[in-house]
Amino acid sequence: MTTESPVRETVRAYYEARFTGDVPSAAALIGDDFLFRSPFITSDSPEGHLDGLDGLLGVIDRVELISELYGEGDATLVYDIHTVPAVGITQRTAEHFRLQGGRIAAITLIFDSAPWQAIMAAAGPTPA
Amino acid sequence: MTTESPVRETVRAYYEARFTGDVPSAAALIGDDFLFRSPFITSDSPEGHLDGLDGLLGVIDRVELISELYGEGDATLVYDIHTVPAVGITQRTAEHFRLQGGRIAAITLIFDSAPWQAIMAAAGPTPA
Repeated sequence: MTTESPVRETVRAYYEARFTGDVPSAAALIGDDFLFRSPFITSDSPEGHLDGLDGLLGVIDRVELISELYGEGDATLVYDIHTVPAVGITQRTAEHFRLQGGRIAAITLIFDSAPWQAIMAAAGPTPA
Repeated sequence: MTTESPVRETVRAYYEARFTGDVPSAAALIGDDFLFRSPFITSDSPEGHLDGLDGLLGVIDRVELISELYGEGDATLVYDIHTVPAVGITQRTAEHFRLQGGRIAAITLIFDSAPWQAIMAAAGPTPA
């Protein structure tokens, strides 16, 4: 599953670009028809789901990749996002990618939003 | 990725047994050293994480398998659990399996617990 494949190449490039904050490189891998879904965001623009990226990267201590599995037209990464001690959340995350014509057509990000809801409730208004 | 493999066979058998409520068949696929983790449960017994299964099955309308990807020693399923209208939750779920010696050594279930927290808060005391 870790042999070279176009799906792997695209997904890994996106993953690296995003976690280094390189929004243009990440967005360049997104296809024309695109749908992003997470517990907090639904977006169909190539960059819309990356709007809050700087804030997230600011509280990430490290990202621990646990599994990467690639099919012919989709892929799923499983990773733990370890946040800085001040936040104190280890966010178990699964990210499912669907690809079409060599670019990313859909991303579904799955994680438990409950710990973040508690932090946001304490901090003030929650995002829409 | 959908060709026959021992990993696929074991994971699919577990998935089918669990969603038909066949706890003994599901538990028989679990290895001696086992760890289950979800937003609500951490358990190392082969059946402990299946204790509330009947209750869950009682509110499931249907399970929609979105992706199944298999590696040499692990697998990830992505599926939507559509609950009955009275509950009204579509639970996007990722389930990561690690296998050892032909049996399941670890399951990490990832989903957003926030909608359930809201329902449980309305219903009464939450589980530990």
